[in-house]
Amino acid sequence: MSATKRKVLITGAAGRIGTELTRRLGDRYDLRLHFNRTVPDQPLVDDYVVANIADYDAIAPAMEGVDSIIHLAGQPSWRAEWADVHEANVQGQFNVYESARKAGVRRILFASTNHVMGMYDRDTAWPIYADQPVRPDSLYGVTKAFGETLGRHYHDRYGMSVINFRIGWFLEKPEDEIARYMWLSPRDFAQLCWRAIESDVGYGTFYAISGNSSRNWDITDSIVRLGYRPEDDADEHMPPKYGHASFNDGQAGS
Amino acid sequence: MSATKRKVLITGAAGRIGTELTRRLGDRYDLRLHFNRTVPDQPLVDDYVVANIADYDAIAPAMEGVDSIIHLAGQPSWRAEWADVHEANVQGQFNVYESARKAGVRRILFASTNHVMGMYDRDTAWPIYADQPVRPDSLYGVTKAFGETLGRHYHDRYGMSVINFRIGWFLEKPEDEIARYMWLSPRDFAQLCWRAIESDVGYGTFYAISGNSSRNWDITDSIVRLGYRPEDDADEHMPPKYGHASFNDGQAGS
Repeated sequence: MSATKRKVLITGAAGRIGTELTRRLGDRYDLRLHFNRTVPDQPLVDDYVVANIADYDAIAPAMEGVDSIIHLAGQPSWRAEWADVHEANVQGQFNVYESARKAGVRRILFASTNHVMGMYDRDTAWPIYADQPVRPDSLYGVTKAFGETLGRHYHDRYGMSVINFRIGWFLEKPEDEIARYMWLSPRDFAQLCWRAIESDVGYGTFYAISGNSSRNWDITDSIVRLGYRPEDDADEHMPPKYGHASFNDGQAGS
Repeated sequence: MSATKRKVLITGAAGRIGTELTRRLGDRYDLRLHFNRTVPDQPLVDDYVVANIADYDAIAPAMEGVDSIIHLAGQPSWRAEWADVHEANVQGQFNVYESARKAGVRRILFASTNHVMGMYDRDTAWPIYADQPVRPDSLYGVTKAFGETLGRHYHDRYGMSVINFRIGWFLEKPEDEIARYMWLSPRDFAQLCWRAIESDVGYGTFYAISGNSSRNWDITDSIVRLGYRPEDDADEHMPPKYGHASFNDGQAGS
């Protein structure tokens, strides 16, 4: 890393994920925060902007001088109606990419989602690899797939680096059977983000989950290409599912 | 085929492709034509509607009583600006799928495009198979990829049958080297459409080109799953590229 810290813009920084990343990456980078509507009572960083990402002229100034963007802003609910995902995740996505390109931003990390592939999950068609054809389970997932494709285009056409993270379930601790395979801990996502920002990957789509022993989604690419070394595993926080993995324990000498 | 002809809606029927399909499929189906703005002087079919597909309430009534849709309407230029492709190919696409679903339409054939994969072509990364990850060469291509993904979702979620055609270069006759590999003749596309309408395929994405000897895109799926038997080959209309394929001709007995 150079002596000067990289300028990193976090969009949607008031959300659950944005708040955690701000706390965990604030020492490593020179952060700028973007809030879509309201500013938290005590913003964790002085450099912030308030802008609706669906308004190009409002969001464009946030890109000036930025090295990388962690793009979290958008409609986050997989149950959202078309009008909401359309505004935030289609028009808003275009505005962020286009204004970032014009400002010369080097790299965008995009908060995509497992819902892009959710129909494989409903069919329990596991394992899932990131490069399989997309099968969204919702209009939300359709618009996040759009965001990934837009990034592919901006990479191919303009050389901008784009890394799509298909985020699992971002939670402090895993709480149920679904979290067992899809949990993403705050520290593991923070690690994925800094590794991605500092990697030599031009473009890629990666599942972003912790090192869950019971995972159904491939993270080999995240390990090999990004150097990801997850520190958490949902199974360590939950009752055993299949019993002890070393099933011969206790039988030695019998 | 039942004694009663299927009701087939052609959207964007005033365009080049729409006009040809109307002529060629008018005997086989009970057609309804959709025109986005202007009605041709002499519409080829009495049953027609005029509606902007970006206006949900305007387009929805066109779906009533329809068995299948050949969905051609949209912004057709790969050089189009975001505002144009966004309105016609994102909002318009959603309106067509959502209103078709509500009206109980059985199947949609979607006029997608080779531009969804255009960056492979620019890299001459051939052959291209339809199920590779998308790499659009333009915002137009990005929005057509969105249309394919939306169809995947409507198939998975609601059981609607969706067939995406990645149309090559629809021309009366091939005219240059690019057409040699990407030509789609009017009669071959008409055949693809009726085979798709009458097939048992629930969902699929297919390259729509003629049986060009110099093709770079896979049409095996079109042949096997849809029963496509192309009648045209661009090489038959153009000067030889590599000389005669049977290069031993004339050497026999030498």
